[in-house]
Amino acid sequence: MPHIPIAKDSPGIFGLFQFRPETAVPMLELCEVLLRGDNSLSRGERELIAGYVSQGNSSEFCEDGHFTIAAIQMEEGREIVRAVRAVPDEAPISAKMKALLRIAEKVRIGGRTVLDDDVDAARDAGATDVEIHDAVLIAAAFSMFNRYVDGLDAIIPEDPDFHDVVAQRVVAQGYARMAKMISEGASKAGASR
Amino acid sequence: MPHIPIAKDSPGIFGLFQFRPETAVPMLELCEVLLRGDNSLSRGERELIAGYVSQGNSSEFCEDGHFTIAAIQMEEGREIVRAVRAVPDEAPISAKMKALLRIAEKVRIGGRTVLDDDVDAARDAGATDVEIHDAVLIAAAFSMFNRYVDGLDAIIPEDPDFHDVVAQRVVAQGYARMAKMISEGASKAGASR
Repeated sequence: MPHIPIAKDSPGIFGLFQFRPETAVPMLELCEVLLRGDNSLSRGERELIAGYVSQGNSSEFCEDGHFTIAAIQMEEGREIVRAVRAVPDEAPISAKMKALLRIAEKVRIGGRTVLDDDVDAARDAGATDVEIHDAVLIAAAFSMFNRYVDGLDAIIPEDPDFHDVVAQRVVAQGYARMAKMISEGASKAGASR
Repeated sequence: MPHIPIAKDSPGIFGLFQFRPETAVPMLELCEVLLRGDNSLSRGERELIAGYVSQGNSSEFCEDGHFTIAAIQMEEGREIVRAVRAVPDEAPISAKMKALLRIAEKVRIGGRTVLDDDVDAARDAGATDVEIHDAVLIAAAFSMFNRYVDGLDAIIPEDPDFHDVVAQRVVAQGYARMAKMISEGASKAGASR
């Protein structure tokens, strides 16, 4: 049972976004820039980092959601996600992505655990400064999203297709579109009060 | 030494914001809503939660920064911050704030550690649903900011007055103004490229 009153048909973070649209909008805008904006890391690769960090935090809703979004945006995505879920170092991903996942895991545990050697290894594997920055920030951001969803005990969806449906929508329309809808819904609700 | 190239005169998160203005703007907008927007928790109380979580994460830059911002926005603020830094349960703050700090500490450790009993205790002490939501989200957000700053090994300011100067500016102008300046600076830099 969620710790605050959430509509029964709004699982996971969506119920929280509905409860507090004011904070939902900047959070979704951060996701849009970080996971879908122009970047030398593909959208699938960035969602893979998000899913991997959420798995490390045992944050089921975010883990399943972002791994699903990763899978449908990468060639052989389902196989890649299955392998990363099991043993990332043996997954069919680039050496650069493996090094960035190692940094993400350290950020998840605690920022101070990231050492110069970890960053040097990523750079040796071809990572740019922006890619290193973004991997750290994705891991940090999902340290927030995971705690937000689990700290308020958000609803776990019962519908087995839930994450597939949401993933298709995110891939087609993005997080910015969700922010716009939430923002418009909130101002309508405000006007009718 | 920071893990990415940061201007020497931009300590802490400010150097990271300069490096990547695209992600800085939504992060600052989240701070504005969460720490300064309309709320039954005072601005000082919300900054106190931010400082307390950062202290728990040993994230010096955010800890000193947000405790300073808390102190100047509360009556007897310096004494309150000193007491919260030492033993929060003995600090001269409301029973509600003590219960919210206990929830924030659990969120910091991991979302799933927050139990119904913790939330009931906050509610018994007078906390509203929005206050419980916001305490959880502030703790989650600083789990992000702390990891972002420390995961990239941002610069620790040498100037002993640094946090006082920044705090005065935040109290006077807010985080939204910083977001606006960063956003304008970035588009100017883009235009002159």
